[in-house]
Amino acid sequence: MITINYLTSIEFGSGAVQRLPQVLEELGIKRPMLVTDAGIARAGILTRICAYLSAEQSAAVFTDTPPNPTEEAVELATEFYRKHACDGLIAIGGGSPIDLAKGVALMATHDGPLSRYAGMAAMPLIGPQAVPMIAVPTTAGTGSEVGRGALICLRDGRKLVFVSQHLLPKRALCDPDLTLGMPAALTAGTGMDAFTHCVETFLSPRVNPPAEAIALDGAARAWRWLERAVTHPNDAQARWEMMMAGIHGGLAFQKGLGAVHALAHPLGALIEPMLHHGTVNAVLLPVVLRFNAGHVGDKYARLKQAFGLPADADLAAEVAALNTRIGMPSTLRELGVSANVVDRIVAGAMADHSTPTNPRPLTERDAAALFMEALGD
Amino acid sequence: MITINYLTSIEFGSGAVQRLPQVLEELGIKRPMLVTDAGIARAGILTRICAYLSAEQSAAVFTDTPPNPTEEAVELATEFYRKHACDGLIAIGGGSPIDLAKGVALMATHDGPLSRYAGMAAMPLIGPQAVPMIAVPTTAGTGSEVGRGALICLRDGRKLVFVSQHLLPKRALCDPDLTLGMPAALTAGTGMDAFTHCVETFLSPRVNPPAEAIALDGAARAWRWLERAVTHPNDAQARWEMMMAGIHGGLAFQKGLGAVHALAHPLGALIEPMLHHGTVNAVLLPVVLRFNAGHVGDKYARLKQAFGLPADADLAAEVAALNTRIGMPSTLRELGVSANVVDRIVAGAMADHSTPTNPRPLTERDAAALFMEALGD
Repeated sequence: MITINYLTSIEFGSGAVQRLPQVLEELGIKRPMLVTDAGIARAGILTRICAYLSAEQSAAVFTDTPPNPTEEAVELATEFYRKHACDGLIAIGGGSPIDLAKGVALMATHDGPLSRYAGMAAMPLIGPQAVPMIAVPTTAGTGSEVGRGALICLRDGRKLVFVSQHLLPKRALCDPDLTLGMPAALTAGTGMDAFTHCVETFLSPRVNPPAEAIALDGAARAWRWLERAVTHPNDAQARWEMMMAGIHGGLAFQKGLGAVHALAHPLGALIEPMLHHGTVNAVLLPVVLRFNAGHVGDKYARLKQAFGLPADADLAAEVAALNTRIGMPSTLRELGVSANVVDRIVAGAMADHSTPTNPRPLTERDAAALFMEALGD
Repeated sequence: MITINYLTSIEFGSGAVQRLPQVLEELGIKRPMLVTDAGIARAGILTRICAYLSAEQSAAVFTDTPPNPTEEAVELATEFYRKHACDGLIAIGGGSPIDLAKGVALMATHDGPLSRYAGMAAMPLIGPQAVPMIAVPTTAGTGSEVGRGALICLRDGRKLVFVSQHLLPKRALCDPDLTLGMPAALTAGTGMDAFTHCVETFLSPRVNPPAEAIALDGAARAWRWLERAVTHPNDAQARWEMMMAGIHGGLAFQKGLGAVHALAHPLGALIEPMLHHGTVNAVLLPVVLRFNAGHVGDKYARLKQAFGLPADADLAAEVAALNTRIGMPSTLRELGVSANVVDRIVAGAMADHSTPTNPRPLTERDAAALFMEALGD
């Protein structure tokens, strides 16, 4: 038997973010905490969005989201939420502020420590008292704006997932205009995150035909539009399509990811180097596609057809070539990763929630080999 | 700007219905009212399902659902719900018991009359106090088990839609085994309902890429498997695929239907002849596909590709040929409809909620011509 869930309410399109004051009112939020990061503040997006709020909706603004949200940051932000007597959350940014806000939604209403709620098995411990939240993505990739999960690095160094329908944003305001002009490297890295979500959920052996249909469409959409968004940062249609591809990935998550994410999660928990999740996915994807070949039925053929590639194309090589065209690195070494973290990454990957849904069963030896291959030695 | 909603929790697969007692417990329902019809009772499905309930979960059983649910039936059933002091609903059957139960969920908790809540504009009047409901479809077609809407015939003769996320079943238990052995005519009629939902939502001009992806997959699934389900009523895979296609239709509804449904709704409100909704859709679909040709961009090409048809195939003719192969009538005349209802059907179609999302704008004259062509004179 299979379980299928679709749980999100999304408002999508140019100007969607202008609906923020009305959505706050609809949700009965009077004193929102706005969770974002310094980059968003610097880019002027924060000022633009705050200007839409009415005088009565003055938000308490938290800009200290780290690149990969940590337990410490969740605690700090939760304290901020309490201090300012907030009654709701607005997350503005990429995956990091959205995931951090999910951590606050949880910890402001549930007894600690945070680690109690980690992992799929802890899902029933998270209740409807979680703080209501609105997500406003400013990148096109994470999918967290329509997902039930958050990835947070615990004190002990593990990057774990926190999942509950109660952590799902009550509303996602997806405004592709917020991504106009985004720098090429961030467009490419976040875009490859969206692409990887769609490809991995499509390949996951879990049975969920609606998610599979969404994933295939999302993968093809990212394939068609990512390069254009990178080379033409102000192309409104490319930005629209890429933000839509990000949502498709997020809606398909429930089908389960695979070895790319299983390896990317512990890599994202490293303090040094501090890695960008989507960029790591981009490097890992061709390696994992080669590993999974022969374990995916006709799915590579279906992906190639959807991408408009010839039937005899090498999918992994095509993805590697896309990486090159959009300026992604081809090895983890280029990102500053070294071989001495291999044991830690393999241990993290074997324990990761994405590992069971990789189409080819993953052994420790496989995980180590994939890591070394991606490292580029 | 566009709005996208996915709101359902579905448990799908052989034996799914056996989860009923546990789901009742999860939802805190102690005294369920079971809404079904005489056909389901006669087929023995009711007895089988009731046997799964624990001694404490004895249900009050209502079997008087009419073929097309009416305002009178909603009142009768609501009275029954109150008399038996129920605290939840289980709908077992095709679209009629599920829609009737949605009527009870509404009227047991909201002030009457029912007509107040009709139409898309009345959606905000329906609140979270609506009775929680579990849907157990016994046909593969309606999609109502994962939909927010109910179609109910009012006293004044109009068949109108009642829509709210609060009318969405809290859980859909989709067990394809319940459809094993279903007679050919019912399999074909309900299957063409699923197919039509997918085709019309795919063609709808409203922008909702995830729904469009689901609709395309569902249409192709029904195209591949419906004939097999009709000719081999005990083929478990065909039943699985068709029940999945029904869900795809229901998940895609939010994108809007078209002229087939706009005409089928007032036809379904006729007392004489009493028509089967899916069978009426089957007859109307080729006629409407011809009407919409040239107003659908590349979508007929994409449908034909997904169906494995040659690029130069005539989609309307192919659907008409499928109808013939599965024993569907080719004219409304064969179903007992006569030309003298044309004004009533046209008026109903012009006011229908599905009309604005037909890809080609529909005038009164168009609606009359489509009706007359489908009539077969």
